[in-house]
Amino acid sequence: MYELLRTIDSPAQLRELDMPALHQLAGELRAFILESVSRTGGHLSSNLGSVELTIALHYVFDTPGDRLVWDVGHQSYPHKILTGRREAMGGIRQLGGISGFPRRTESAYDTFGTAHSSTSISAALGMAHAARLQGEPRHSIAVIGDGALSAGMAFEAMNNAGVTEDMPLLVVLNDNDMSISPPVGALRYCFGRLISGRFYQHARRGVHYALRPMPPISHLASRLESQMKGMVVPSPLFEEFGFNYTGPIDGHDLDVLIPALQNLKTLRGPQFLHVITQKGHGYKLAEADPIQYHGPGKFDPTIGLVSSAKASRKSYTQVFSEWLCDEAAQDPRIVGITPAMREGSGLVEFEKRFPERYFDVAIAEQHAVTFAAGLATEGLRPVVAIYSTFLQRGYDQLIHDVAIQNLPVAFAIDRAGIVGADGATHMGAFDLAYLRCIPNLVVMAASDENECRQMLHTAVHTQAPCAVRYPRGTGPGIATEAEMTVLPIGKGEVRRHSGKAAGQRVAMLAFGSMVAPSLAAAEALDATVANMRFVKPLDEALVRQLAQTHDVLVTVEEGCLQGGAGSACLECLSDAGVSVPMLRLGLPDEFIEHGDPAGLLNHYGLDADGIRASIQRFTDKVLGAGPSCAVAREARSK
Amino acid sequence: MYELLRTIDSPAQLRELDMPALHQLAGELRAFILESVSRTGGHLSSNLGSVELTIALHYVFDTPGDRLVWDVGHQSYPHKILTGRREAMGGIRQLGGISGFPRRTESAYDTFGTAHSSTSISAALGMAHAARLQGEPRHSIAVIGDGALSAGMAFEAMNNAGVTEDMPLLVVLNDNDMSISPPVGALRYCFGRLISGRFYQHARRGVHYALRPMPPISHLASRLESQMKGMVVPSPLFEEFGFNYTGPIDGHDLDVLIPALQNLKTLRGPQFLHVITQKGHGYKLAEADPIQYHGPGKFDPTIGLVSSAKASRKSYTQVFSEWLCDEAAQDPRIVGITPAMREGSGLVEFEKRFPERYFDVAIAEQHAVTFAAGLATEGLRPVVAIYSTFLQRGYDQLIHDVAIQNLPVAFAIDRAGIVGADGATHMGAFDLAYLRCIPNLVVMAASDENECRQMLHTAVHTQAPCAVRYPRGTGPGIATEAEMTVLPIGKGEVRRHSGKAAGQRVAMLAFGSMVAPSLAAAEALDATVANMRFVKPLDEALVRQLAQTHDVLVTVEEGCLQGGAGSACLECLSDAGVSVPMLRLGLPDEFIEHGDPAGLLNHYGLDADGIRASIQRFTDKVLGAGPSCAVAREARSK
Repeated sequence: MYELLRTIDSPAQLRELDMPALHQLAGELRAFILESVSRTGGHLSSNLGSVELTIALHYVFDTPGDRLVWDVGHQSYPHKILTGRREAMGGIRQLGGISGFPRRTESAYDTFGTAHSSTSISAALGMAHAARLQGEPRHSIAVIGDGALSAGMAFEAMNNAGVTEDMPLLVVLNDNDMSISPPVGALRYCFGRLISGRFYQHARRGVHYALRPMPPISHLASRLESQMKGMVVPSPLFEEFGFNYTGPIDGHDLDVLIPALQNLKTLRGPQFLHVITQKGHGYKLAEADPIQYHGPGKFDPTIGLVSSAKASRKSYTQVFSEWLCDEAAQDPRIVGITPAMREGSGLVEFEKRFPERYFDVAIAEQHAVTFAAGLATEGLRPVVAIYSTFLQRGYDQLIHDVAIQNLPVAFAIDRAGIVGADGATHMGAFDLAYLRCIPNLVVMAASDENECRQMLHTAVHTQAPCAVRYPRGTGPGIATEAEMTVLPIGKGEVRRHSGKAAGQRVAMLAFGSMVAPSLAAAEALDATVANMRFVKPLDEALVRQLAQTHDVLVTVEEGCLQGGAGSACLECLSDAGVSVPMLRLGLPDEFIEHGDPAGLLNHYGLDADGIRASIQRFTDKVLGAGPSCAVAREARSK
Repeated sequence: MYELLRTIDSPAQLRELDMPALHQLAGELRAFILESVSRTGGHLSSNLGSVELTIALHYVFDTPGDRLVWDVGHQSYPHKILTGRREAMGGIRQLGGISGFPRRTESAYDTFGTAHSSTSISAALGMAHAARLQGEPRHSIAVIGDGALSAGMAFEAMNNAGVTEDMPLLVVLNDNDMSISPPVGALRYCFGRLISGRFYQHARRGVHYALRPMPPISHLASRLESQMKGMVVPSPLFEEFGFNYTGPIDGHDLDVLIPALQNLKTLRGPQFLHVITQKGHGYKLAEADPIQYHGPGKFDPTIGLVSSAKASRKSYTQVFSEWLCDEAAQDPRIVGITPAMREGSGLVEFEKRFPERYFDVAIAEQHAVTFAAGLATEGLRPVVAIYSTFLQRGYDQLIHDVAIQNLPVAFAIDRAGIVGADGATHMGAFDLAYLRCIPNLVVMAASDENECRQMLHTAVHTQAPCAVRYPRGTGPGIATEAEMTVLPIGKGEVRRHSGKAAGQRVAMLAFGSMVAPSLAAAEALDATVANMRFVKPLDEALVRQLAQTHDVLVTVEEGCLQGGAGSACLECLSDAGVSVPMLRLGLPDEFIEHGDPAGLLNHYGLDADGIRASIQRFTDKVLGAGPSCAVAREARSK
């Protein structure tokens, strides 16, 4: 098995193969990916779709001398396998194993780390300019999906690239009519028209598309000429940006792909190659349902995905999904917005029940936020469902369009905190820090499923922008109440009272997902635990009160310590002139690597045992030595 | 004078005028703007260019029932004057006066606050969807400049708008071949080809462009038909996005504009009207030099701008400009990147001397950052010159593409802190908070001109992403040294030592622009002053040492207090178990309004007098009462 594939440890070896061998390699590679992903879980559909394109690119271009940038990187498994990481695939996305995305630290062939969408053209353009300045003839190639092309930064990059007349820059559009969710937006029609047309059929039949050698596009070419060209290939959009458009060609036919790339390699100036592929290609089950097979867990490839027994606990995403439908049924002002994450963010049911009020704006976080602001100006109550890490893309819009105007937009921030296998690029580590500096914004962190529901309800019943953050996966398993109640803004609650004597009292100020492990840790310590609920406005009275009645405060948050919720508590106490030893627990000042979420929480001391142990060490230090403890209390009472 | 204009206090009155009166009104309005701006300073060229377009929009549409969104808002003075704010123009951009940008709190006609570029289509699309859901027939109109069209979010919005077949949404492209800097990017060629062509000439001659009634664009229209259409009007780009394109028409001819808008008002689905205007139109001096007249100070309109006597002090922008050229002359790895702010960011000289290494990427902050990351992967040393407020647009790219990969990109962050007349939308209040939570990033704040130069030098000689922030305008007047020295990372310096006795010692930890006023304030207080230099990594040893040798610490920063530099000092002391009364001075948790920068600094207590007074009050409180002072010192020494 894999008799050819196992001889390939670098693209140089691949480049020595003849065409029949390359075809064989493609078959083995596809089978290997299926087997490998079925054992580890990971991204499947997109990688089955990029097998031939990956082989062709490494065959034609002199990687790693020529620079290859994979947009998003969901489709980089064939690339990883062909560039010396075949054996490492068994540990992909696991703690200590290779990443599910390209990583510069992992291989010289990974020229640019990706994961968030639509960065590849910008990066490749930077590399192309560098090559020009350095007088090196190397090629720079960005491979971008049709879904990723909807994000604004791809257009910013194309607009900038189109003026570079002499550089070897190639953008390959890997068009599979699909991002993670089905694609939306007007450009889709442009591609769709094309794919259904005769040129696509032509390509799909395997007829070799006769690529004529094309001169670099002259921007002074007459409009008539460019229009005539537009009649045979769907070039206008990309050619308006100054690219020389070629395509569409069949992305699963090496006999088409390789000559096309060889031809483009001889041309100068920005080249655009439109390649049609099929997500899940070669595995019937994935072809039929590429969304389900986008990122499956482990499965038996001969059977396919088995719908697992209903999980005993609801995920926070499901809690959000149910809440949104319930709220929308009661309140016609509710509208739901997703930047292309219908499934991930839990909007499938909402779309079915309220199609008129559902907006998938494509991968376009900036637009999603300002679009919501526009809806809010008219009295609607937009709910933007977004991952913590992707809200970074809409940060300016959140400040400039929502918060300055104090518009009541609700942000349902999923995947806040540790996300697991997707790694550093997807961690929701920064939101508390980057949100709590924004005036007018209310920031809540949900400690359980029911509270999440009530916080979301609170968010759409508050005359201010509100964010509710909740983690990936399941919560502690609290049943949600059908009734929805507006929580008092800026008020936390004490969930457990310490029975300890003065001089030994510990109070834990826990935020969101850290309330449950804090309560568990509190048992052994007999500590007070507050569920703070609000990071902003902080319940300052509660913080002060707990400081005055306890000997040690501990803040616990699933987010970065720098500027986070614990930092807000320090500000509160400093401003109040209250001094008490405080331990801040949270994520350290480093990027969090991929791995199993429970393992990562354990690693960072944010499970119950870790929290307890950290507090024990801290109290031993600050309370252990008699005198300093007395002094601490004295200082506090001043 | 202004005999017709002074009778117009609302668009309803304007709508009663006949065509000759509208022409007269345009003339008076243009004269009024010139006189008004020459007295107050403010935006001129763009407002002279939008006179007729503004009149035509308010004449044809039923504002404020129909919603009008002005992108950026530089061009909204005619709109303000015609909507009841004629008299208020005398106080524009001044403390307590009206804003230089549209503001929802200022007028019902200001449907959406703008200032940052390219938000208008998103906002107007939100309003259009709201109208649909509410069953109201109102129109939503976005007016966007050709410069603003280069930003990704405009494309995100167009891609999303293009699928709305039945809504009254109009995008007016106000094409004046100019953003603030001359326009760049490939799309420019698309417009340029057009403007030089016969259709533009046709329009400019005032011939009425015969607008045919057009049906909503059908996405299923055959390619042939759309191509044929493309031959007579430059539609392909916008029609690919699903818009029905009309134009170009002369934006200074009411006899063309009004019928065109009246026609478009009858159509459904996304409409795109391409209007050609001239920046500075009607004022010869501004027509000849629209950049100089983009945002002038006060001037005599009969003479025009007089080049003021050389300012005695260099602005920080000039310091940056000189440093970049000096550094680039020594180091061929240096490249400079600006998102369309060549003049504002001080890259004019660099472009002249190093054109190959200069990159104006258009209004495209996201791309600017990732493009820089791409350049950095190849061993170059990119310097991204950007305003604090606009870096918010590249926040995700800074985290995801630069910091995670630890690429040595230098960010020269201008306009950090209070910016003055541009107001809340432009304040550089948040950068320290949103930057210091990012791992790997080095964050410096320059306290004077020479230090700014050395910090920039340090930034490009550090193997990590580095940010150097400096304020708008001039510094304390320190001469820059020709020699450049790498500063030790994470080290501050004590600039003044208190001579006070134990029990009364105050140490000020001052950041960047607050060092100079802190030193001034320190004289009367006999306080120690540290120039902290680094917000990240913080000089923790210095903070601890000053805490241990002083009785009160005061942090001073020109940025938000929530999560800012003072907060970093609190974290440091808390983690070290050191307790000392601390006063944090900075910007409060509110958006800072427009006004004179010195006046605003005074208002927020961030000039020398204000700092001194705040410290005096604080020390009276915490040191005044004998016992607590002793306790504080005891606690500290544990």
